[in-house]
Amino acid sequence: MRILVVNVNTTESMTATIAATARAAASPGTEIVALTPSFGAESVEGSYESYVAAVAVMEAVRAYPEPYDAVVQAGYGEHGREGLQEVADSPVVDITEAAAMTAQLLGHRYSVVTTLDRTVPLIEDRLLLAGLAQRCASVRASGLAVLELESDPAAAVEAIAAQAELAVREDHAEVVVLGCGGMAGLAEAVAARTGAPVVDGVAAAVTLAEGLVRLGLTTSRVRTYARPRPKRFVGWPLPV
Amino acid sequence: MRILVVNVNTTESMTATIAATARAAASPGTEIVALTPSFGAESVEGSYESYVAAVAVMEAVRAYPEPYDAVVQAGYGEHGREGLQEVADSPVVDITEAAAMTAQLLGHRYSVVTTLDRTVPLIEDRLLLAGLAQRCASVRASGLAVLELESDPAAAVEAIAAQAELAVREDHAEVVVLGCGGMAGLAEAVAARTGAPVVDGVAAAVTLAEGLVRLGLTTSRVRTYARPRPKRFVGWPLPV
Amino acid sequence: MRILVVNVNTTESMTATIAATARAAASPGTEIVALTPSFGAESVEGSYESYVAAVAVMEAVRAYPEPYDAVVQAGYGEHGREGLQEVADSPVVDITEAAAMTAQLLGHRYSVVTTLDRTVPLIEDRLLLAGLAQRCASVRASGLAVLELESDPAAAVEAIAAQAELAVREDHAEVVVLGCGGMAGLAEAVAARTGAPVVDGVAAAVTLAEGLVRLGLTTSRVRTYARPRPKRFVGWPLPV
Amino acid sequence: MRILVVNVNTTESMTATIAATARAAASPGTEIVALTPSFGAESVEGSYESYVAAVAVMEAVRAYPEPYDAVVQAGYGEHGREGLQEVADSPVVDITEAAAMTAQLLGHRYSVVTTLDRTVPLIEDRLLLAGLAQRCASVRASGLAVLELESDPAAAVEAIAAQAELAVREDHAEVVVLGCGGMAGLAEAVAARTGAPVVDGVAAAVTLAEGLVRLGLTTSRVRTYARPRPKRFVGWPLPV
Amino acid sequence: MRILVVNVNTTESMTATIAATARAAASPGTEIVALTPSFGAESVEGSYESYVAAVAVMEAVRAYPEPYDAVVQAGYGEHGREGLQEVADSPVVDITEAAAMTAQLLGHRYSVVTTLDRTVPLIEDRLLLAGLAQRCASVRASGLAVLELESDPAAAVEAIAAQAELAVREDHAEVVVLGCGGMAGLAEAVAARTGAPVVDGVAAAVTLAEGLVRLGLTTSRVRTYARPRPKRFVGWPLPV
Amino acid sequence: MRILVVNVNTTESMTATIAATARAAASPGTEIVALTPSFGAESVEGSYESYVAAVAVMEAVRAYPEPYDAVVQAGYGEHGREGLQEVADSPVVDITEAAAMTAQLLGHRYSVVTTLDRTVPLIEDRLLLAGLAQRCASVRASGLAVLELESDPAAAVEAIAAQAELAVREDHAEVVVLGCGGMAGLAEAVAARTGAPVVDGVAAAVTLAEGLVRLGLTTSRVRTYARPRPKRFVGWPLPV
Repeated sequence: MRILVVNVNTTESMTATIAATARAAASPGTEIVALTPSFGAESVEGSYESYVAAVAVMEAVRAYPEPYDAVVQAGYGEHGREGLQEVADSPVVDITEAAAMTAQLLGHRYSVVTTLDRTVPLIEDRLLLAGLAQRCASVRASGLAVLELESDPAAAVEAIAAQAELAVREDHAEVVVLGCGGMAGLAEAVAARTGAPVVDGVAAAVTLAEGLVRLGLTTSRVRTYARPRPKRFVGWPLPV
Repeated sequence: MRILVVNVNTTESMTATIAATARAAASPGTEIVALTPSFGAESVEGSYESYVAAVAVMEAVRAYPEPYDAVVQAGYGEHGREGLQEVADSPVVDITEAAAMTAQLLGHRYSVVTTLDRTVPLIEDRLLLAGLAQRCASVRASGLAVLELESDPAAAVEAIAAQAELAVREDHAEVVVLGCGGMAGLAEAVAARTGAPVVDGVAAAVTLAEGLVRLGLTTSRVRTYARPRPKRFVGWPLPV
Repeated sequence: MRILVVNVNTTESMTATIAATARAAASPGTEIVALTPSFGAESVEGSYESYVAAVAVMEAVRAYPEPYDAVVQAGYGEHGREGLQEVADSPVVDITEAAAMTAQLLGHRYSVVTTLDRTVPLIEDRLLLAGLAQRCASVRASGLAVLELESDPAAAVEAIAAQAELAVREDHAEVVVLGCGGMAGLAEAVAARTGAPVVDGVAAAVTLAEGLVRLGLTTSRVRTYARPRPKRFVGWPLPV
Repeated sequence: MRILVVNVNTTESMTATIAATARAAASPGTEIVALTPSFGAESVEGSYESYVAAVAVMEAVRAYPEPYDAVVQAGYGEHGREGLQEVADSPVVDITEAAAMTAQLLGHRYSVVTTLDRTVPLIEDRLLLAGLAQRCASVRASGLAVLELESDPAAAVEAIAAQAELAVREDHAEVVVLGCGGMAGLAEAVAARTGAPVVDGVAAAVTLAEGLVRLGLTTSRVRTYARPRPKRFVGWPLPV
Repeated sequence: MRILVVNVNTTESMTATIAATARAAASPGTEIVALTPSFGAESVEGSYESYVAAVAVMEAVRAYPEPYDAVVQAGYGEHGREGLQEVADSPVVDITEAAAMTAQLLGHRYSVVTTLDRTVPLIEDRLLLAGLAQRCASVRASGLAVLELESDPAAAVEAIAAQAELAVREDHAEVVVLGCGGMAGLAEAVAARTGAPVVDGVAAAVTLAEGLVRLGLTTSRVRTYARPRPKRFVGWPLPV
Repeated sequence: MRILVVNVNTTESMTATIAATARAAASPGTEIVALTPSFGAESVEGSYESYVAAVAVMEAVRAYPEPYDAVVQAGYGEHGREGLQEVADSPVVDITEAAAMTAQLLGHRYSVVTTLDRTVPLIEDRLLLAGLAQRCASVRASGLAVLELESDPAAAVEAIAAQAELAVREDHAEVVVLGCGGMAGLAEAVAARTGAPVVDGVAAAVTLAEGLVRLGLTTSRVRTYARPRPKRFVGWPLPV
């Protein structure tokens, strides 16, 4: 089975981190193909960048020349999953939803710890749309920018664990979700600090995607995610 | 006062229709500048096309060389408004929300009549996110594609009025919203058939935008719609 | 165009303040007629007073002898809008809803800062009924009585700005709504303190009302706000 | 124990019907005092009439010269309960809420069958505010005006039972609430037709009121329903 | 009238406390029969114990040899009410719901003060299912185990009153609900400390049950709470 | 990896069907151990039976003498999952939630088709508690009893497919969930009839459980699902 794991930003080292997490979670026999979009921002921390990322991810998947069995969109709280479902030849799993579902299997309420304060409402919006907000106790910001996660991992663990502890103690969360594709390597350290299970979205999404493939299930074409109708486009897709 | 009214698709005749509606609704002294995106689909009827439109609209506004006072996003149920709020220098009004707010001022519940069945969930999602779903009685599809609205206006009135009547009688709507930027010219005929007020989103958005400008109010930069952070982009924006 | 702006209490100086705000927001050519009810409390700070005000406002509008184009109910969080829609000959805009809608166009969440703690639940109830509660981050009380707003404006600014700052910082509001018809003059000072847009309901309602009139839209008579049925009344309306 | 049961309209025969229902439901030793407002409409079927009734009921209770232990507001879906709680010296029970609570004790979902279509949204609004809408399957209109209930009881049973049957079969109601103070006498006949328990609001409210009195509980004065603050009123209350 | 009041745990002294509270709330002529389950935990403080209690309560009622008019399930936030409604020959009132309904009649919002932190989500779940969560301001834990309520009543009052005061001040509750069947004796002391009405579930349930019996209403057999279908059971019910 | 799949009823042939479905969905190397409770009803079609099943499933898992890695509760819409999470040594997956989550990954809305009308509200309640109701379009009953699924599979396919088609056409479902543990073998036939993906809960739960085990995640012990406190039990657990 081949799963495309698509980074939402154009920072290759981030793609490498995501790929490593995905491979660690995958079953034997699952091939992880990690893709970096050909255009877009080095990190995604707001709606403008996220919308550009949404189409960049779609184009990356559309341009992928080989067959594949599932797609994982590896950006937390980003736009685009609905469009990707229309154009991908396989089921699509967004890490935002995968992490929330996994968390809901483990505790009564979960909290998300993310990067900057400004991305909190984006994540809340995604969970609301996905029908997964009811059991979300809170979305908390660590105050770190996406790229700081890589540049200072020790500070990242500290900042994230501090918010995770507040989520458990004050917001009554019982499970912590790491709210950024680049936080994957930090799960163990945060779990040790909080005593609560910690869910990484990339890992969660890979196992959900594997499950769908094994069950032979794919995106419904009945209405919302039907294939795009034939259309005349101007200036799109971009020439590669 | 200058208001940019941005079509979401690349069909120029549709831009002209939208511009005419906007001008009819505008106060004396308001200049309507109608923009057509430089890339994207001839009509937007699904999430893939809508995501491409979202960034195309943003780029159109970013590329506009003159000052402006407000932006109207003239696609019903489309993505992108949050990103546009980050990059525009002025308040942004989405016709989906403008029509819903206007309808809520006129009756206890409203219904939206749109084009194809597949766009119904997109509109429902936009209203949910906007916090305007509670008083929405239903979103109904007329079964007409966007471009058919132009090619056969008489059939369009018939199909839309039939659904509007069902909305009033069966879904207990008291106001009807025309759920497509291209339906503007049909309001009067549909109102005559249903006895209910009929709201066109483009007209509603223009008056709301004018109101914001008159009140001196613009997008909050406090958190969600703060200006994008400085970032390194790859391959974006597109060369014009 | 003539807009009736109706104070909910019987304090004439408050009517004058409201009228001034309304005129400042109105377009050239709009005539603002400010009405004071002929009966009721000097200030409205609870449900008993608010219900009396509701009928007093309706009677004031019913007794107004000239034609008019729209009615603004200028009390924040008060009862009566539904009845006023039945009896008025024009569209009706309640400042509670007008401010919330305007705020929703400007930021992801808004907070209301009102007068006394006891009026908070009344405002929450009005927003819930109006279908505008989802994006309300909080309703906060400044602790000032309505009439204190007039008697000590400097203290009022201080108390309101303090709550507005808490709303932005702790409740994640991005827009502040002034939750009392008599707070209009304070918007600029509160905006300066919080860095967030500040919406005054009277000004917002006037622009929304103007918009409805320009669009030729009025209250739906389909069901909820149909004209009252012919009835025999005892002792009502009050002899003028 | 003395319970004031206050009709919302000025039709004395309706007050008599309500009084009879209340007495049939009351425990031995409970005195039912039925009040008719001194002003207002002969029947209440819309918001204008309902707001007038709200203050008329409050004034009737305020003018009542003897002590009392509880107040029942005997109009289904009407305004005013919150104000009445401020001014009454005892707990207040609204028949809309009493019937809904009682119905919720008996089945998974309940439906309300009321008079005219135009009153349906008023009832829905009251249930929403009361926090009792979640388990309401539907509010259905029989098409009968309030006063027709008295003039043709056989037709009333037929029309109400027909809607009750639809509520059970199509809306999945398991309990039926009679949504008008004047429907009390019809409960048995409707129950026989539907096989579902039928709840009359007046009877339900009397038993709830008795329970509160026996438990020594009364309206909280902590915030929302605190006593009105001392105020200067103009032209109010009406001279008796 | 005979009401079965069923303790959910197997501690006889707790049954005695509950019985005393029930008798104090009952009308003259109401016989209270307090039952202790024949199996289960000495106190119920989690879902495993609560599920065992649910079936133990059902079996206790099924085994009761005499006729009865109503059943009160006297455990706060416990499972089982839906099953009990199927097997009991009379209406069933759960103290969780009875207290919430009673509280809603007295103030705009109520809070529950319960025992251990781990039972808070169980109570929240029960209120959500019952459709009574909307007006619940908070569920707070006193930190006391169920059996500590008996062993140190003075500390219990202190711990509960402290949380009740926080509920009123910080969560905007206006009524306090005692969230444990064993807290009944503490209502007066907590009310004195908070100034808010305090509702005990057992007392509230007894008066609601009496009301249903007086009105001749019982559980709907239409769908959800229809009698169990004839079935072959293995190893159940337990031999007495 | 060893997964316990626990039937909720005592019909061994049903356990065999469930085991076969679970094995078909499991990865190589996963051992499925199917358990039948030692007490309870031959089929579970109501709350009384479901509560007995809840404790029977818990006791079956507690009595299982070997180590295991995950537990699947194989009854659709049944009680007990929260208690099982407290007592099981591993993550627990309920088929009701597993199927809903899987369906949400595949389409915008899903519907459940279950057995008898009386079980519909039980399923709705479980989805509400699980926070998975928002995207549920409907729960529909086929009218077949649980044991009829086995006795007449052809009629079962027909009845279920008919409701599934209505769900897609009238309720706007895009994915169909089979709402009974015993429906597993029918997925293919129903999918062929509706054109929509069909999700079987047992298969979905096995893949979710495998994923949790692979990720090393288990039930949070932070609060709700902490281990039961040490307690004195009377007459429980049942002697084996």
